[in-house]
Amino acid sequence: MFQILKTEGRARRGVFTCAHGTAQTPVFMNVGTQGAIKGAVSSHDLKTLGCQIELSNTYHLHLRPGDGVVRQLGGLHRFMDWDGPILTDSGGFQVFSLSGLRKITEEGVTFASHIDGRRIFMGPEESMQIQSNLGSDIAMAFDECIENPAPFDYVEASCARTYRWLERCVAEHQRLNQQPGCVNPQQMLFGINQGGTYPELRVRHMEQIAQLPCDGFAIGGLAVGEPTQTMYDIIDAVEPHMPREKPRYLMGVGTPSNIIEGVARGIDFFDCVMPARNARHGKLFTWEGTINIKNEKYKLDDRPIDPACTCPTCAAFSRAYVRHLLAAGEMLAMRLAVMHNLHFYNELMARIRQALDEGRFEAFRAEYSEKLGRPAP
Amino acid sequence: MFQILKTEGRARRGVFTCAHGTAQTPVFMNVGTQGAIKGAVSSHDLKTLGCQIELSNTYHLHLRPGDGVVRQLGGLHRFMDWDGPILTDSGGFQVFSLSGLRKITEEGVTFASHIDGRRIFMGPEESMQIQSNLGSDIAMAFDECIENPAPFDYVEASCARTYRWLERCVAEHQRLNQQPGCVNPQQMLFGINQGGTYPELRVRHMEQIAQLPCDGFAIGGLAVGEPTQTMYDIIDAVEPHMPREKPRYLMGVGTPSNIIEGVARGIDFFDCVMPARNARHGKLFTWEGTINIKNEKYKLDDRPIDPACTCPTCAAFSRAYVRHLLAAGEMLAMRLAVMHNLHFYNELMARIRQALDEGRFEAFRAEYSEKLGRPAP
Repeated sequence: MFQILKTEGRARRGVFTCAHGTAQTPVFMNVGTQGAIKGAVSSHDLKTLGCQIELSNTYHLHLRPGDGVVRQLGGLHRFMDWDGPILTDSGGFQVFSLSGLRKITEEGVTFASHIDGRRIFMGPEESMQIQSNLGSDIAMAFDECIENPAPFDYVEASCARTYRWLERCVAEHQRLNQQPGCVNPQQMLFGINQGGTYPELRVRHMEQIAQLPCDGFAIGGLAVGEPTQTMYDIIDAVEPHMPREKPRYLMGVGTPSNIIEGVARGIDFFDCVMPARNARHGKLFTWEGTINIKNEKYKLDDRPIDPACTCPTCAAFSRAYVRHLLAAGEMLAMRLAVMHNLHFYNELMARIRQALDEGRFEAFRAEYSEKLGRPAP
Repeated sequence: MFQILKTEGRARRGVFTCAHGTAQTPVFMNVGTQGAIKGAVSSHDLKTLGCQIELSNTYHLHLRPGDGVVRQLGGLHRFMDWDGPILTDSGGFQVFSLSGLRKITEEGVTFASHIDGRRIFMGPEESMQIQSNLGSDIAMAFDECIENPAPFDYVEASCARTYRWLERCVAEHQRLNQQPGCVNPQQMLFGINQGGTYPELRVRHMEQIAQLPCDGFAIGGLAVGEPTQTMYDIIDAVEPHMPREKPRYLMGVGTPSNIIEGVARGIDFFDCVMPARNARHGKLFTWEGTINIKNEKYKLDDRPIDPACTCPTCAAFSRAYVRHLLAAGEMLAMRLAVMHNLHFYNELMARIRQALDEGRFEAFRAEYSEKLGRPAP
């Protein structure tokens, strides 16, 4: 269930409800690819960090430990001890970005596991079955994710196939939810818009999939190589054709600025590996801009990473300490840095929501959209 | 200050007090080599895990970030945000085990940094100065740590030098504690007994160092290659010559069984990297014996690592989940496993103390001394 509480321009302030609770939107989903967050962060830590929705990856969990194992252990919520909402992606993105030799047919994709090279087939039905075994709250449709740019004719044909795959996903998803012993019979399904960087293909595809009984819609295949302005232009083109009453998810995006601009364009859900990945390289977000904690100038800096931050790292440890741990190759550096960046992203969303609640989102956007991406002074 | 509350045979139940609080003994010190515990475990986690004394390494912190940096940042307690007792080793063990080319003279040791090969000199005075800068509660004397076995003549000469070094440590330590701006003017100094595997050298050396005004005494140079029974024999030989009213520390030891046997022989302090290192390889301690969590048989095992354990890992996560994380190479596996093993060691000490309090340590020893080292049934 999705309820819009308030709007400002195209930006939306909402509440999303699923089998494992509610999420205030706009929301940033925290990525736990293999059922754990990179950097030694657990599901319990996610609660502390203000995470509302956890995101795990169908492709990875299918390969290891196997979705059958997770199902036998009671589903992903129990497996990773996270009682809040979970979204699983469809595996499509990883099949096309991580795995080796692959062959696409109308039926689906045959690909080689990135772990052991084993040949695996995944089509719409398989993706739905895996996600049903995982018992996530939101399953994502199985789609082809194309690199940008790609030839018009290829994208057009791919969109048509992704539409047919979505029809099959919807049917299989409905069937699975009604099976006895289904891990999460209230699992929702989100459709995914594709169309590369061609506005007319994007719009046509969105109009088609909007007719299908999905619980929400995502824009996929962006932030995969195209210029940022192109991404914004595509969102601008597609958004008017997305059902207003359903949640909208911009997949794999992005920087704080991208997120603020996405919200301004009517997006409700986001996810990205960036905060955790940047953290592991010492690139940390603050409300004054980014800092590289490896920098020599922090060697004797006794202040927290961001004096304005309330995360567990900033509450206890100094820049000098985090810098030392990173230089010394201590795993604790990863944990402290990742916790800070994830908390920053969740706090960013909280501030965006508060600005929307108070009718001052445009002022917030003007103050922070560029600032958060620049190096701190 | 050290107070013995109760004894059973040679085993002692005591309370140790220093500038940063008290520790109930026998105690196991948790190792945070570079100011952080391996496996993404922080000083705050140590509190949760029941740690009473944290141990950091002079050699590592001298090289990185530099003890001058730690001093400028207010000392090690503030640097790592740990307000309990800290013991620092002298650097001697690492100088002899980690660094490259080294040259020993009466003055001290010149060695090559294992990080960048830089030539560094460390003698008794330098070790005391570094530990004073770190501001630990217990400084360890600078000694030569010899591999076992070593020729009698070499060990005898080394013992004589280590005794002269201890005299210099005592003098320098007293001088530093009286300097204005000393980070921790109440820092204590423990002397270290050496003598390889030669009981007569061990006893002679112990009798000599017992005359010097140290706050406690350690047995060093054991668990470095000699048979376990030899280690016990050496403790049996040395212990009667250790001052009864001062704490005794068996350095770098050991397995749960070694610790129980050490307590039975009158030892109060222990430390070892084993619980953390074993954890990182999937070898976990339980009250039924050890388990290797990588084993296939745990793939679908929904039980905690040890159903009798109250650690944060066992409170939330299953064997199957920890096994999956380890197989998937997730850092969280390290954290969950290390937290379990450290908690186990701290709990082991708590149970030893309770057994001593209740006059049933020998029964405890009979039940657990062998069992805890064997694979669980």
